Amino acid sequence: MKELKSYLNANKERYLNELLELLRIPSVSADPRFAGDVRRMAEATAEHLKAAGADTVEIHDTPGHPIVYGEKMVDPKAPTVLVYGHYDVQPADPLELWDSPPFEPVVKKTKLHPDGAIFARGSCDDKGQFFMHVKAFEAMVKHKALTCNVKFMIEGEEEVGSKNLEKFCLANQKKLSCDVVLISDTSIIDNNTPSLTVGLRGLCYMEVEVQGPNKDLHSGVYGGAVANPINVLCSMIASLHDAKRRVTVAGFYDEVEKVSAKERKLMNAAPYDEKQYMKDLGVNDLMGEKGFTTVERTGIRPTLDVNGIWGGYIGEGAKTVLPAKAFAKISMRLVPGQDPKKIEKLFQKHFEALAPKSVKVKVNAHHGGYPVVVPTNSVEYKASEKAMEATFGKKALPQRGGGSIPIVAMFDQVLKAKSVLMGFGLDSDDIHSPNEHYGLFNYYKGIETIPYFYKYYAEMKKKK
Amino acid sequence: MKELKSYLNANKERYLNELLELLRIPSVSADPRFAGDVRRMAEATAEHLKAAGADTVEIHDTPGHPIVYGEKMVDPKAPTVLVYGHYDVQPADPLELWDSPPFEPVVKKTKLHPDGAIFARGSCDDKGQFFMHVKAFEAMVKHKALTCNVKFMIEGEEEVGSKNLEKFCLANQKKLSCDVVLISDTSIIDNNTPSLTVGLRGLCYMEVEVQGPNKDLHSGVYGGAVANPINVLCSMIASLHDAKRRVTVAGFYDEVEKVSAKERKLMNAAPYDEKQYMKDLGVNDLMGEKGFTTVERTGIRPTLDVNGIWGGYIGEGAKTVLPAKAFAKISMRLVPGQDPKKIEKLFQKHFEALAPKSVKVKVNAHHGGYPVVVPTNSVEYKASEKAMEATFGKKALPQRGGGSIPIVAMFDQVLKAKSVLMGFGLDSDDIHSPNEHYGLFNYYKGIETIPYFYKYYAEMKKKK
Repeated sequence: MKELKSYLNANKERYLNELLELLRIPSVSADPRFAGDVRRMAEATAEHLKAAGADTVEIHDTPGHPIVYGEKMVDPKAPTVLVYGHYDVQPADPLELWDSPPFEPVVKKTKLHPDGAIFARGSCDDKGQFFMHVKAFEAMVKHKALTCNVKFMIEGEEEVGSKNLEKFCLANQKKLSCDVVLISDTSIIDNNTPSLTVGLRGLCYMEVEVQGPNKDLHSGVYGGAVANPINVLCSMIASLHDAKRRVTVAGFYDEVEKVSAKERKLMNAAPYDEKQYMKDLGVNDLMGEKGFTTVERTGIRPTLDVNGIWGGYIGEGAKTVLPAKAFAKISMRLVPGQDPKKIEKLFQKHFEALAPKSVKVKVNAHHGGYPVVVPTNSVEYKASEKAMEATFGKKALPQRGGGSIPIVAMFDQVLKAKSVLMGFGLDSDDIHSPNEHYGLFNYYKGIETIPYFYKYYAEMKKKK
Repeated sequence: MKELKSYLNANKERYLNELLELLRIPSVSADPRFAGDVRRMAEATAEHLKAAGADTVEIHDTPGHPIVYGEKMVDPKAPTVLVYGHYDVQPADPLELWDSPPFEPVVKKTKLHPDGAIFARGSCDDKGQFFMHVKAFEAMVKHKALTCNVKFMIEGEEEVGSKNLEKFCLANQKKLSCDVVLISDTSIIDNNTPSLTVGLRGLCYMEVEVQGPNKDLHSGVYGGAVANPINVLCSMIASLHDAKRRVTVAGFYDEVEKVSAKERKLMNAAPYDEKQYMKDLGVNDLMGEKGFTTVERTGIRPTLDVNGIWGGYIGEGAKTVLPAKAFAKISMRLVPGQDPKKIEKLFQKHFEALAPKSVKVKVNAHHGGYPVVVPTNSVEYKASEKAMEATFGKKALPQRGGGSIPIVAMFDQVLKAKSVLMGFGLDSDDIHSPNEHYGLFNYYKGIETIPYFYKYYAEMKKKK
C-alpha cells in the first residue's frame, strides 16, 4: 500500500488535470440540447477505463443516454466488486448565481477546504467521485495490487431517474454478477470525521396541475367570484403539513419503520454545530418536524417539499390576470418501510380529494425510488469501515443520508448484491446548487482509501 | 339625429376597416420591445383625430409613452366634454391560446355576438371603444351637429398604471378644463340590457419575495430541516383568506362603505344566469365571499387574488431542489371607502408579520388606484341614461364594475370633473385574456349613442 501512496503523490497533478478535463464536458442529462456532450462524456469515460487497465470496455446504447461498462478479471476465485457511478450532471441553472462558469472548473480555497476545492458542476456529484475509482484502479493495476475482480458500470441518467438502468441490469445479469456494489456518491460528516452511509431516503416526485376557469380572466371582472387556481393551489399545498410540520397525506406515516433509541442516540452523537449550520445557509431559524433533531429530520424522517411552482403572470410589472392554471412539482423523501409506488397513490388520492369543486386537478408522477438501509454487520460494511480507518486514522461513523440513490434497492433486487456507500463529499459541497465543488483533500483521500477496501474485502471474504 | 344614423349606415365598412387597421399595431405598453409600435399607434390616433375634424391635435411626450390630445371648440358658452381613452393594450401572452394571431384581427360570429365580433388584442379594451368617439365626432362635425366643445385625451399607459397621466393633467389643468369626462372602457350587461357603470373597484397591487436559504439546496440533503420558501409562501398566501373567503389582512374591511339593501336589491335584479356563467367559464362551482352573490362579489366587495407565482425548478422533468426564493404578485380590488395607500401599508405589515423566523420577506407595491362611485342624480348621468334609452329602447341599469380605472378618481381631484362611464363591451369579451373580441353591434351602437349624449347633455346644461 506504501507504493500506491507514493504513486498517488507522484501523480496528483495529472489526476487533477484529468478530472478537470472531464468537468469541462457539460453532460447535463435532463436537457436534450446537451445530448451530444453526454455522449462525449461517455466516450471519455470509456477511454479512461481502457487507459487505466480494463480488459473489456463497452459503451451500451439505451433509449436514453449510454451506459459505460468496463471490467478486469484477475482471478475467478477472487471476489468481484461492481463499481457504480454516474457521469451525467444536474442542470447548472440558475447560471447567474455561479461565481465562475459551471463548466470551466477552477480550484479555490474555502473554509472547509483549506487545501482547495474544485468548483464545477459535477465535481462532487458524481464525476469527481466515480473518477476516484478509475484512478485507484489504475494504481492497483500498475502495481499488480488488484485483489478483486472489478467491473465498472457508469451510467448517464442518474440525474433523470436512471430510466434505463434496471432494464440493462435485467438483460445483463450474468455480465454484472458480483459480490458487492461499491458506490461513491454520498458524503462524510467532515474532513476530520469519516462516515459511511447506512441509509438513504427514497423518493416520490409528483407534478400537479390545478385548473380553474377555461381561460385567463380579468381579475377585476371575475376576481372574488371565480376560484383562482393559484390561491387554491397554495391552500392545498399549505394543508400538506400540519402545525407540527408533519405531512398530512393520509396514510403517509403508516409504514415508516421505527428507528431505535440507540440508533437515534448514535446519530445525534455525530458532530453538528447548529449555529454554524444556520450561518452557512444564511437563515435565522430552522423549520422541521417537531420532536426531531436536524440530523433526524434529514436522515430518518420522511419529508415533503415543493421543488417548483408556477402560474399566472410572472414577467416584469403588473398584470391583473386571474389565470386558468397553476402548477407545482412536489417531492417526498421516503424512509425505510415506505413504498414509493404506494405513496404515489396515497398522494394522488389525497391531493385530488383536497381540491374544491371549483377547480379540476391533475396529478402525475415523475421517477421515484425506494429507501435503503445498509446492514452494519456485513463483510462489505466491515471492509469499508476498516479501509476508512486506515486512511483517516479514526473509525467511520454510520450515517443516514437524506438524499436518494434509487438504484441501490434495484441492485439488491436484480443483481442480488448489497451496496457499500463509501462517499467522500461534504453536505456543504453544493451539489445540485450553484458553485458545486469538491475538495482536493477528499478527491485524493478517496483514491487512497479505495485500494484498502479491495484489500480488506478480499481478505475477509477468504476467511469467511 | 336621423342624418347621423344614415351617415353611420353608409360608412360602416370604412369605420370597421379603420379600426382593424389600428388593431394591427401591437401597442403593448408593458413590454419595451413594442415601444416603437406604441409610438406608431399614438401617431395613427392623432391622424384620425385630425381627419375627423379636430382643430388642434398634439402628441405630448412623457417619460413613458405619449399622450394624444385633440380639441374642437364650437362655442365658448357650450359645455365641454373631455373624452378619455387609451390606445395601449395588454400583453397578448399566452400566445398559444389564441385561435388567431392577436394583432391580425378577424371578424367571427359568436353566440353572444350573432352579427360578428372583431377578435384582436385591444378590440374591446380600449381601441374599439375610444375609436367609437372619434367616429361619432367625425359624424357630428360633418353634419354640424356638435352641441358641445370636445377635447380628446387618449393615453398610452393605462395598462401599466397611467404612470404619467396625473402629472400631465396637473401641468395642463387649463387646457383640459371641462364640464364632464366621458369614458368608454367598461361594459353593458348584455346586448339587450344596456347599463351604465356607477362604481369601479380600486386596486392595490403588491409583489412579494420570500427568501429561505442563501442558495438553492439539494432537497434530499436539507429537505425537512430547512424552511422551503415555496411551502412557506403557499402557507402565507393560504392564510390570506379565512373559511368564509374573507381577506384576513388586519384592518382590510375597516373602511369599506356599506351598500344599502336597496342598492343591493337593484344590483341583483339585473339578468344573471349562474348556470350559463359557470358553463362559459368551464367551472363546476363558484368560489367567493360567503353571504354575497356573484354580482356583489365582483361589484361591491373587495377581493384578493394571486396574479402570478413562481419559484424553484419549472422546466421539464424533475429537479430535487429546495430553492432559495419564491415570488408572487398579489393584487387586491378595493371598494368605496378603502384607500389603496392605506391598504398597501396594511398588507405589507400583515404579510411581513406572517413570515416565520426561518425566512426573510420583501414586499413591494406596484401601481394602485382609488375606487369610484358615480352619483346617479347628476346631469351627466341623466344625459347618458337618456342617450342609451334613445338607441337601445330601454332604460340603462346602474351597475358596479369589478375592474379598476384608477384615473377616474384622479380626474375628480385634479380636473374637478366627474366622469361618465358609458362603455359598450361585454364582460365575456375576454379583455386581458386570449381571444379578446368586441361585437360589431356594440361598436356601431356606441357610435350611434355618443351623439345623443352630446345632444342631451347640452340641452340639460342649458336648462339648469
